[in-house]
Amino acid sequence: MNRMFLSMALGLGLGAAYSLPAYSQAKPETLVKQRQAAMTLQGKYFGPMNAMAQGKIPYDAGVVTRNAGYLDALSRMPWDGFAPSTKGEKSAALPAVFTDAGKFKEAQDRFQAEVTKLASVAKGGDEASVKAQISTVNKQCAACHEDFREKR
Amino acid sequence: MNRMFLSMALGLGLGAAYSLPAYSQAKPETLVKQRQAAMTLQGKYFGPMNAMAQGKIPYDAGVVTRNAGYLDALSRMPWDGFAPSTKGEKSAALPAVFTDAGKFKEAQDRFQAEVTKLASVAKGGDEASVKAQISTVNKQCAACHEDFREKR
Repeated sequence: MNRMFLSMALGLGLGAAYSLPAYSQAKPETLVKQRQAAMTLQGKYFGPMNAMAQGKIPYDAGVVTRNAGYLDALSRMPWDGFAPSTKGEKSAALPAVFTDAGKFKEAQDRFQAEVTKLASVAKGGDEASVKAQISTVNKQCAACHEDFREKR
Repeated sequence: MNRMFLSMALGLGLGAAYSLPAYSQAKPETLVKQRQAAMTLQGKYFGPMNAMAQGKIPYDAGVVTRNAGYLDALSRMPWDGFAPSTKGEKSAALPAVFTDAGKFKEAQDRFQAEVTKLASVAKGGDEASVKAQISTVNKQCAACHEDFREKR
């Protein structure tokens, strides 16, 4: 069970029947580094889109389509890094990540769903709809940070 | 020209005719953090594939397809972070990144092309071909690190 949990937690999809793969033994500090890397890149690619939606920089459909595609991949990457083994690591994660894992998972799922929708809407190209969906994604970022990340 | 360079360097695709967007003014330390984040995640998703190709962990077609797709996106993310403004930042980047930018760009392009091929081959599902392509990608990682990254 522990083996399986580790595999699942790392998203490797390797069943318990296999021998424990080296990659399911990722150190807690590595998991934290990887999940923070995913968040850093979400910021890199979401930031400009959010600035466009807020009218701070000119709208660029090509950039939005590209960034939304990247974000669609990135939106799936941080979550296996919040393994229970990382509980004691220094990070901005609030205890609720571990004590309210169900609610955290729901927030992840909502975020991913809205990002996937953004990637799809971005391909359509209607600027107003795209901007509205960027704002929706932004609200999901904020809601999850509110509940699960230390205020800075 | 400088404006345009900055925009291009950040891959925002915003032309010089626009006012300088906030995001083209990313601090050198932010650029380094973002490019390192992309490398960290390349390691997260390439590591298990490489271990499979080397027979260290069992081959899992589902994991390979997913990871290759992620890597295809991640393989495009680090490069705009190697802007000339980052020359003085502490990192493992060798001076050749800046003094031999043409060769560095060629190495990036080769890497990206091989990763894109891997993502495509992975969908086909022939294990031997996929493993061979994983090894090819691994060689591109190593070749670029050899020339452009400090030995550790």
